[in-house]
Amino acid sequence: MITVVAKSVLKDGKTEEFKNLTKELIEETRKEKGCIEYILYEDIENEGTFTFIEKWEDIDCLKAHFESAHFKKLGPQLGELRKSRDLNFYKEA
Amino acid sequence: MITVVAKSVLKDGKTEEFKNLTKELIEETRKEKGCIEYILYEDIENEGTFTFIEKWEDIDCLKAHFESAHFKKLGPQLGELRKSRDLNFYKEA
Repeated sequence: MITVVAKSVLKDGKTEEFKNLTKELIEETRKEKGCIEYILYEDIENEGTFTFIEKWEDIDCLKAHFESAHFKKLGPQLGELRKSRDLNFYKEA
Repeated sequence: MITVVAKSVLKDGKTEEFKNLTKELIEETRKEKGCIEYILYEDIENEGTFTFIEKWEDIDCLKAHFESAHFKKLGPQLGELRKSRDLNFYKEA
């Protein structure tokens, strides 16, 4: 299993737009082969900081996700709302 | 529920020491009141990058964790091994 932690710090005032766009991404991604968990978290102290925590069966499923139509459509749109991003791929230690 | 994501980037050559110290921390923390999940992840691409993903029933349980004997003992020792830290507190979006 592979765990992805993808943190986004948004540009000012982009929180609602980000939340709306991620709704479709979450709905479609959860249907994908090998997607065990795909949850969006919102920082309780810092407005506009969000993190996806994702669990995938293996790296091939994750690669397929990056090639999916919904990711290719929504990924760049979400990218426009972001000030910075931090992306890591993990295994349980 | 509150989700904590605590990322550590270690100083060079500190991986084994970090893993050994976290063993006791994980064992003791999982016994704490309100600790739903407390898992250490290791970056599969970047040596020396680790992230705890923690789920707590509420903020009071988390505060009690920060005051626990094992955290007060091991926290500073782990801090010595770290180059940088990124700590966020989340709710599900």
